[in-house]
Amino acid sequence: MAGLSRSPQQLNTLQTSDAELVKLSDQTTLAITIDGLIEEIAQGLYEDPYVIGWMTIISSMSDLNAVGAKPMGVLLLENIPKDYPEENLISVHQGIKDAVEYSNTFVFGGDTNQSESLHTASVAVGLIEDNKVISRIGVHADDLILMSGKMGMGMMYAYERLIKANSQIKFYPKPDLRQGQLIRQFGSACIDTSDGFFPALCNLMELNGVGFHLEHSLSQLVQHEIASFCEKNSIPPSLFLAGPHGEFELLFTMPKNKYTKFLSEANGIGWYPEVIGQATKRKGLVAKFGESKFVIDPFEISNLYELSNGCANDYLQDLIKIDKLWQSQIRN
Amino acid sequence: MAGLSRSPQQLNTLQTSDAELVKLSDQTTLAITIDGLIEEIAQGLYEDPYVIGWMTIISSMSDLNAVGAKPMGVLLLENIPKDYPEENLISVHQGIKDAVEYSNTFVFGGDTNQSESLHTASVAVGLIEDNKVISRIGVHADDLILMSGKMGMGMMYAYERLIKANSQIKFYPKPDLRQGQLIRQFGSACIDTSDGFFPALCNLMELNGVGFHLEHSLSQLVQHEIASFCEKNSIPPSLFLAGPHGEFELLFTMPKNKYTKFLSEANGIGWYPEVIGQATKRKGLVAKFGESKFVIDPFEISNLYELSNGCANDYLQDLIKIDKLWQSQIRN
Repeated sequence: MAGLSRSPQQLNTLQTSDAELVKLSDQTTLAITIDGLIEEIAQGLYEDPYVIGWMTIISSMSDLNAVGAKPMGVLLLENIPKDYPEENLISVHQGIKDAVEYSNTFVFGGDTNQSESLHTASVAVGLIEDNKVISRIGVHADDLILMSGKMGMGMMYAYERLIKANSQIKFYPKPDLRQGQLIRQFGSACIDTSDGFFPALCNLMELNGVGFHLEHSLSQLVQHEIASFCEKNSIPPSLFLAGPHGEFELLFTMPKNKYTKFLSEANGIGWYPEVIGQATKRKGLVAKFGESKFVIDPFEISNLYELSNGCANDYLQDLIKIDKLWQSQIRN
Repeated sequence: MAGLSRSPQQLNTLQTSDAELVKLSDQTTLAITIDGLIEEIAQGLYEDPYVIGWMTIISSMSDLNAVGAKPMGVLLLENIPKDYPEENLISVHQGIKDAVEYSNTFVFGGDTNQSESLHTASVAVGLIEDNKVISRIGVHADDLILMSGKMGMGMMYAYERLIKANSQIKFYPKPDLRQGQLIRQFGSACIDTSDGFFPALCNLMELNGVGFHLEHSLSQLVQHEIASFCEKNSIPPSLFLAGPHGEFELLFTMPKNKYTKFLSEANGIGWYPEVIGQATKRKGLVAKFGESKFVIDPFEISNLYELSNGCANDYLQDLIKIDKLWQSQIRN
């Protein structure tokens, strides 16, 4: 909104952090974020009431994770049609309850309204108690870039639901909320992949004026079963990294000299994040296809979904076209 | 939601406070609330985009006022139809901007989605820095009950818009956010009249197990021009106190021995709240019609709007019927 001044207590500026960071004292920062589930429900991406409840909570919890805040609680906004089936509402609430308990947090309260169609939102509230904040800003050239886990399931879910009309597939991402709190101690920047890997990467590149050199090939970034699926069906793995729907992993950067200590602490909580490349002074993205390296432009695909007007099939065809161009450049 | 445990940090329980109260430290309490504007827009109560923007902010700011918190900032949820006119969106944003500036606060961030119809929500975040909290709970028999200002404009606006189809009438309530912070120092309980005077009163009666004895007649509770309007048109003033739409004044209680000091401080900021009666051990409400006193049951009208299925005319007729019953009991 134009012309609004920012709070002197706010540590981040617009879009530079997954959650808003508000300094409360020299020791304490409040992390707070709101996330509405409207388009995902309208487009049929989330249909199962339990999934809607689960995702209502997880989408904002993932934002707290990306800033390394400890969750304190959530507020809920529930807009419910008058004739919404009681049993479905019970499932929505079960999904909310399970996700709140999974996140070791609480519902503070909320607001319930009558509406034409079901939509929800959650506000996640967390604390950072040592004032060492992390946001999307802070990447330096030569920093390592890491992923919290293999990616692709968010887009695989969207692919199955919207292209294959598979109504049986389930999606319950379970971000480990201890990860962000650890990343905050060692990392230079962090973002979640709720909108997909390439959009997250574009965001870090743009905000920090850096490029990335990936050491993992694209098929090494996605889960093993997705890589196999891609090979079997001649679908490029880039599809499952392109967004707009992601898997709520974390993408984060870190000075090289912090890595050994970080990895040892990560392994200590049973977590095995992977270094996938490093930041470069030269802008742009160097990616690997098999053993070949090539400069690709992830910005080419980061607005593609919007351009397709929400038509999943058009989007898929456009993605495949771009991937073929990338591949052909390697072969030439 | 059944079966969810409450946060040990939360000071209020469900529906016992206008905003959620979360203890951060021995010195500090976070006040946080979410308020969605959906039904008000769908029913045509708020139509002017500027009013929608203004009310998006004021409705949650009023909740902070009722708990005496100092506003820190807001998060916005904006669900906007694809074809929503650009000039209307500019007006919504102007209303938001003006209300944020009026409230001396800031927009921290938010979430914007595409939706079928326009709806908004705001999350107000405030601090209480001495940990002396006030909620809807705490009224004792013999406490004074006060109103922050004359009431009725919220229902007059609804009456004009929904019964008279007056599209020119404007509604920009301007709660003075210093009032709650002062009430918190002296008062025993506080609630805003966003849902109307009688619903607020019912709430305090039910939560505290007390009754009230009003010294002001009903026509003294409403603004002078509303009292004149009622007399001229033979409309009972109770209509303008019945909700479901209120005027965002505060209704609060206070031990008698705190009153003189409180009033002097209130007058010091140019504020002239009125004592309208006192709390009684005996449940029920003793009200004044002119000079006659009678026990009325405000619960009779507190669910009336819901029972009318949102039909403003039916609601009005039902209200008038109940008021006539009350009046006839006085004459008998």
